[in-house]
Amino acid sequence: MTATNSAIQTLAWCGDEHGFLRMIDQTRLPSELVYLDCRNVDTVFEAIRSLRVRGAPAIGIAAAYGLVIALQKNTTRDEAVFFEALDSQHDYLASSRPTAVNLFWALSRMKRAAESMRGSAPSVILPHLLSEAKSIHDEDRAMCHAIGGHGAALLADGAGVLTHCNAGGLATAEYGTALSMMFTAQDQGKKLKVFVDETRPLLQGARLTAWELLARGIDATLICDNMAGQVMREGRVQAVVVGADRITAAGDAANKIGTYSVAVLANAHQIPFYVAAPTSTFDLSMISGDDIPIEQRSAKEITHGFGKETAPEGVKVYNPAFDVTPARLITAIVTEKGVISPVNEANVRRIVQGL
Amino acid sequence: MTATNSAIQTLAWCGDEHGFLRMIDQTRLPSELVYLDCRNVDTVFEAIRSLRVRGAPAIGIAAAYGLVIALQKNTTRDEAVFFEALDSQHDYLASSRPTAVNLFWALSRMKRAAESMRGSAPSVILPHLLSEAKSIHDEDRAMCHAIGGHGAALLADGAGVLTHCNAGGLATAEYGTALSMMFTAQDQGKKLKVFVDETRPLLQGARLTAWELLARGIDATLICDNMAGQVMREGRVQAVVVGADRITAAGDAANKIGTYSVAVLANAHQIPFYVAAPTSTFDLSMISGDDIPIEQRSAKEITHGFGKETAPEGVKVYNPAFDVTPARLITAIVTEKGVISPVNEANVRRIVQGL
Repeated sequence: MTATNSAIQTLAWCGDEHGFLRMIDQTRLPSELVYLDCRNVDTVFEAIRSLRVRGAPAIGIAAAYGLVIALQKNTTRDEAVFFEALDSQHDYLASSRPTAVNLFWALSRMKRAAESMRGSAPSVILPHLLSEAKSIHDEDRAMCHAIGGHGAALLADGAGVLTHCNAGGLATAEYGTALSMMFTAQDQGKKLKVFVDETRPLLQGARLTAWELLARGIDATLICDNMAGQVMREGRVQAVVVGADRITAAGDAANKIGTYSVAVLANAHQIPFYVAAPTSTFDLSMISGDDIPIEQRSAKEITHGFGKETAPEGVKVYNPAFDVTPARLITAIVTEKGVISPVNEANVRRIVQGL
Repeated sequence: MTATNSAIQTLAWCGDEHGFLRMIDQTRLPSELVYLDCRNVDTVFEAIRSLRVRGAPAIGIAAAYGLVIALQKNTTRDEAVFFEALDSQHDYLASSRPTAVNLFWALSRMKRAAESMRGSAPSVILPHLLSEAKSIHDEDRAMCHAIGGHGAALLADGAGVLTHCNAGGLATAEYGTALSMMFTAQDQGKKLKVFVDETRPLLQGARLTAWELLARGIDATLICDNMAGQVMREGRVQAVVVGADRITAAGDAANKIGTYSVAVLANAHQIPFYVAAPTSTFDLSMISGDDIPIEQRSAKEITHGFGKETAPEGVKVYNPAFDVTPARLITAIVTEKGVISPVNEANVRRIVQGL
């Protein structure tokens, strides 16, 4: 692992509006760094569904580019037909992952961009859509850096930091959210010791986060998820930092399964627990996290997760993709607009909506 | 998996003193139920060394029968020659697993049984040794049933029960320790819903506990370790039951890594947390669990645990084999002599030492 950050681009658009989306196939990490070129919408859909691209912001960016790709072959000059196609491709892409609010947000934004061009020829709308997708991409990059800027102050030089899953550059346009706090702290000359939960069943921590941290020369130690409590008890952790997939107005945060357990453990050990996420992750139409639907994933992720059967045939499996950490367990939410702390509805609305 | 309990015996002696030891080859689980017939001492030695039989009590029983097998072909009538052979076979079997206390304990007991027969012909000593091995086996079976008898009352009909690692019949003569509470509750007509932590890195929960529960027709649901908190939060768990490897006089319990995290989570959700273990597990020379040394295991168990590389090369790994759950997080310790609750030194000594 000698690749430097600048050599790694999770997502890149190649060419003009008739170009294609190149992405790192994250299912191949950490053994191989393989790029997947998406030249049709089904490839994008499959990449999102199969977690070749994952992480809420990266999914949103991929879907935005995916909508451009979906409309490339649409040569109609009939506006109604074009917008009908756009609607149906929008809905198709939106169905690739049920919980990812960024997916819906990015696709809606793309749709609005197209709507604003009603009256123009589809051949004019397409480059405009590509430009909108690139804006989403650029804004995400800037947003990640802003989160790092606000959050790095929360991490002291020499601190032990525990993270779960992957909320790094692979999940976003560049620095990531949770990892941006660490990368920015490193840029400021701080040395951190990061403990990485391997994050069963899909091992995003072991495969992706450990890979990103090593790639940037940050001291990273891999642990199994069930070791987090022990590492905390031994006094090795001064802060927990995780990402989020969806945050309610009350500040309840949905994130990768296991995050809630880590939050309870951090609380029991009086360790601050930080969520790093862009304001686009907030769903202010929802107050309580209890209303967030939890996606159930395939049993085989657990019973055959490594290409090998690890459980008896016929055993029942419970495999929730996410859990919800209630606001009371979150010390602060770090956004690109500032730090929300203490976490409550008034502070969420103040930062997110500027109220 | 339709086998019923009566069909499954981890260890069984077949025939008279010239018979053989039949054991479940646990390395073939959960994919296949394969029995290994041990007709010579090398097969027993290899089975212990290669973890075909595992769990402290089961290893002790296997070694005891192994000593009988080792002496079957010894047709000497010379007492000195016979006892020389016994000594050397004792030492050979004792070297199969370097740290297994039950192994040494069972072999010493066999040796004492032979010594008590000095003056008798080897042809008389051999059946006496078989009878001693059967006693060790029977006593362990009775001990497991006694734990189940004392503990089953703690599990209500319809209860959700969460367990970690494998403290079942495969590790012992029959019912196990933690699982004995569940098997006995089932015998009493109670229906339980058991959640099984897969138990990284070696997956004893997924491979062994899930298999044992299915084999006995108990409703078992496999989860990843990091899902325990979510399952508790959803109200699906009314009790946690685990085994222990070592318990101090204060009631602090060392057990498979991840047990401590489960205990913290149970505490946060006000779910009773039970430890089931024979009184032989107690080390009363030690007061605090902080004094128990924690064995560090190979990094490869985590990075290559499934025959496949799951982490980037060169990442640091922390892999403690055990953790210690402090007495304050344990609702009760269930032993063959009764239930210790609340868990404190006075109650531990009262039950364990009969004080």
